[in-house]
Amino acid sequence: MSYNLLKGKKGIIFGALNDMSIAWKVAERSYEEGAEFILTNTPVSMRLGSVDELAKKCNTEVVAADATKDSDLENLIKIAMEKYGKLDFVLHSIGMSPNVRKKLPYDQLSYDYYHKTLDISALSFHKVISQLKKHKAMNDWGSIVALSYVAAQRTLYGYNDMADAKSLLESIARSFGYIYGRESRVRINTISQSPTMTTAGSGVKGIDGLMDFTERMSPLGNATALECADYCITMFSDLTKKVTMQNLFHDGGFSSMGMSLRAMTQYNKSLDIEIDE
Amino acid sequence: MSYNLLKGKKGIIFGALNDMSIAWKVAERSYEEGAEFILTNTPVSMRLGSVDELAKKCNTEVVAADATKDSDLENLIKIAMEKYGKLDFVLHSIGMSPNVRKKLPYDQLSYDYYHKTLDISALSFHKVISQLKKHKAMNDWGSIVALSYVAAQRTLYGYNDMADAKSLLESIARSFGYIYGRESRVRINTISQSPTMTTAGSGVKGIDGLMDFTERMSPLGNATALECADYCITMFSDLTKKVTMQNLFHDGGFSSMGMSLRAMTQYNKSLDIEIDE
Amino acid sequence: MSYNLLKGKKGIIFGALNDMSIAWKVAERSYEEGAEFILTNTPVSMRLGSVDELAKKCNTEVVAADATKDSDLENLIKIAMEKYGKLDFVLHSIGMSPNVRKKLPYDQLSYDYYHKTLDISALSFHKVISQLKKHKAMNDWGSIVALSYVAAQRTLYGYNDMADAKSLLESIARSFGYIYGRESRVRINTISQSPTMTTAGSGVKGIDGLMDFTERMSPLGNATALECADYCITMFSDLTKKVTMQNLFHDGGFSSMGMSLRAMTQYNKSLDIEIDE
Amino acid sequence: MSYNLLKGKKGIIFGALNDMSIAWKVAERSYEEGAEFILTNTPVSMRLGSVDELAKKCNTEVVAADATKDSDLENLIKIAMEKYGKLDFVLHSIGMSPNVRKKLPYDQLSYDYYHKTLDISALSFHKVISQLKKHKAMNDWGSIVALSYVAAQRTLYGYNDMADAKSLLESIARSFGYIYGRESRVRINTISQSPTMTTAGSGVKGIDGLMDFTERMSPLGNATALECADYCITMFSDLTKKVTMQNLFHDGGFSSMGMSLRAMTQYNKSLDIEIDE
Repeated sequence: MSYNLLKGKKGIIFGALNDMSIAWKVAERSYEEGAEFILTNTPVSMRLGSVDELAKKCNTEVVAADATKDSDLENLIKIAMEKYGKLDFVLHSIGMSPNVRKKLPYDQLSYDYYHKTLDISALSFHKVISQLKKHKAMNDWGSIVALSYVAAQRTLYGYNDMADAKSLLESIARSFGYIYGRESRVRINTISQSPTMTTAGSGVKGIDGLMDFTERMSPLGNATALECADYCITMFSDLTKKVTMQNLFHDGGFSSMGMSLRAMTQYNKSLDIEIDE
Repeated sequence: MSYNLLKGKKGIIFGALNDMSIAWKVAERSYEEGAEFILTNTPVSMRLGSVDELAKKCNTEVVAADATKDSDLENLIKIAMEKYGKLDFVLHSIGMSPNVRKKLPYDQLSYDYYHKTLDISALSFHKVISQLKKHKAMNDWGSIVALSYVAAQRTLYGYNDMADAKSLLESIARSFGYIYGRESRVRINTISQSPTMTTAGSGVKGIDGLMDFTERMSPLGNATALECADYCITMFSDLTKKVTMQNLFHDGGFSSMGMSLRAMTQYNKSLDIEIDE
Repeated sequence: MSYNLLKGKKGIIFGALNDMSIAWKVAERSYEEGAEFILTNTPVSMRLGSVDELAKKCNTEVVAADATKDSDLENLIKIAMEKYGKLDFVLHSIGMSPNVRKKLPYDQLSYDYYHKTLDISALSFHKVISQLKKHKAMNDWGSIVALSYVAAQRTLYGYNDMADAKSLLESIARSFGYIYGRESRVRINTISQSPTMTTAGSGVKGIDGLMDFTERMSPLGNATALECADYCITMFSDLTKKVTMQNLFHDGGFSSMGMSLRAMTQYNKSLDIEIDE
Repeated sequence: MSYNLLKGKKGIIFGALNDMSIAWKVAERSYEEGAEFILTNTPVSMRLGSVDELAKKCNTEVVAADATKDSDLENLIKIAMEKYGKLDFVLHSIGMSPNVRKKLPYDQLSYDYYHKTLDISALSFHKVISQLKKHKAMNDWGSIVALSYVAAQRTLYGYNDMADAKSLLESIARSFGYIYGRESRVRINTISQSPTMTTAGSGVKGIDGLMDFTERMSPLGNATALECADYCITMFSDLTKKVTMQNLFHDGGFSSMGMSLRAMTQYNKSLDIEIDE
């Protein structure tokens, strides 16, 4: 279904790998809603994934860019502006921790890797916004969104330095949201999404048990990638113009739960306690 | 402009008084977006305001109801269900403090009035939701929104017991959001809006200076009633299905600001300090 | 062990019932730290509990007072001031929900009871502070503390309208903290304590399973009543003079946890999933 | 005055420069309270400041260490353990932004400098804790505290990338607080202090106007360095054993204020509005 919510809007979408990716769903939904956009990912991700297929579907192209490199970003923005003029929305869906990949625990991590985690998962957001601003690439009231996770506020076993990176990412959204807002009315927010079984998500330690737990804790269940895409669409639209510098939980209610009946009942099975419903 | 975002959706809108009211704007925008709804307010407010005019514009009717009275609410819901069947959205825009009206300061307030403040401004939300649930009046994935204010988190001079009422309101949104979510997928959220020059807002002590301050503090400026209505539309739509139990700031960034250059510069004038921009 | 942290300090302690009560432990620890204070509780609680025994231990007396009644509070404060002059600290450890007692679920609660829950568990705090202020009963830099629970921020199954009452309580601490702070340097805070197996706590639905869960979630385990008392002592002392309007989590880290290895491992047993530690 | 709150406790204090430093006051107060500790700072800071004088006063020594260098930290911890055996408390009061120093605005900062800001102001905290844990340097129930600022939550003009660094610092406190807590009962917290006229603070743009504003906003006024030291003492003591992974505001109430009468009155002078008190 389409509302033409993004009719005439132009954008850039970072981070679509394959059809499990949230960014992939955002691209599909943006296209349905009338937007035009360029897709981008790193050369490696382009080879590993199937983003070309997505580009075909959305009648667009993929421009390779490493979001940690200013020169790549400048090239990307130049291409986008040649094609579209100024932009209306940008999605940042980028995160990776070499410490997690190499299974280095948080108390024994490599600081080189830690800086890389921050660089890829958080500073890349600063770089993208800096380059957009430098090149006056955003229309007034444009919308920039990055995907985050509740680990920015609450520690989860095994999420490691990605938690710190998400905290930093959310801080960058605030810091830059102030500056880009006051100067060009551009709003910047993060969406804190349920754990999602993307290729990235499936690398998180114990994701199965965790997703069962959050599913039972959340009154509406975990949010899917497609639902997250729908939510991103509203944030790109003209209907949310005065929302900025916020971290918006899109998680079926998880973030506001202390304990649900369903999760407690399941937990109690492990203790052989029965609960009176 | 219309996206048909609420096409086919039915609802109830509480609290439209006159064309400065946020609820008034929500009604207008909901109508433009294809929704049908009943307007409601107390008999007194109906006399003082001009909600009949709004009803005409929106091709609907006004049903008198005091949201603190279960019987009024039952009658209202009965009428709505006869007309529409099940509902998809409800807006609660109700707040009043007799202590504020009578200029009783917070440390010398009347507890009878205090209970009334809570009853009108917060418990009415519980009552509305209770009656909706009791009468199975909401469709699955329906959306209930109440309007709140940052005073729920941070104390503002003169806002008095309304601050406590807003905290309670937001807590009710969470408490009931859990129950109504797990049982019928109904989501419940509050929107924390900028200070707004409505009839209610204009009663707040020192609102002029405050609005100047928040305007200068917020990178995007204060949010207007119309912008708030746009945001409500997204929360009523199918695009935000997994957002629940949240308090969503719609305030041009104010809630995430510590100090802006503009506000500091203005403040410094009172101190005869110049700031280097 | 004693540090004489409260040497020369005078106070009032509300809510000691028996030796499981947090208020009981606060009294014992305050006494050890050199404070003098009056104990108070409702006549019913005085009969049901053993607060007289505590009074003997602490070389003081019990004054009956219903904290929802201004006249009782005035009498209590008068007695305290005759004995001590001005006061330095007050503990509010009062909470009760008739809806919980009568097992009325949140979506079908009695509003009379709801107002009583708020009156007993939250407004009583406002009344205590109002009376203290009215009678100029607090020394400058005095400290007022109420006990709260994480349900004020996150919904827990079965906690019912007590969650709303705790939100209101924390809001009152902020609202009054501003006024009493600016006028008399009195600070007001809430301490959000782990679930505790007090007489009150043991009435909470499913408290056993919940305490097992929070014990495994919290890196330092649940906080005991005695540990909470120690923390209260610091908040009464002169070492925390500039802390006010805060809700302070005293919970072994629970409030900042998303998922621990221990809790996940236990939960997974119910799912027959093994986790790699 | 002394309570012997830290009698027998051993520690390390990072970051004392001169007698305006918070760390300096923490050292003085810790000494008064019976603690023994090593002072440490970078070689450059040791030359610029007067930490030797402090060491004499506190009957201890200064060990030079750059907290961004693992080898320096290992050497420091080795010396401390030889002298004291295991440690009970550590203060981290370290922060510096080359971007701020070079007056590079947030939207045009140097990423090399940005990484340095994070390395000095946040990762150094991770490194300190890592080395302590690796060398089993902390006693059970030891306490580690870092100093933070409200910019971690709310953007302040001119605070630049230090805001992001403080967010990261607070995240590290949570992430490591979980791990060190579950394994050795060590608690880790940050104290979010009022703006303070230290040598570091005085480098912040517009600090004068800001401190005037926060002084008038905070019901108890800004917290001084000495008051912050008192608060740190409570966090090092045995009375706060179950507080961990928290960010604790020590700011006279500022963080919970939306608008005070005093600040509004002052602000209104710049607008020529009079407010009715």
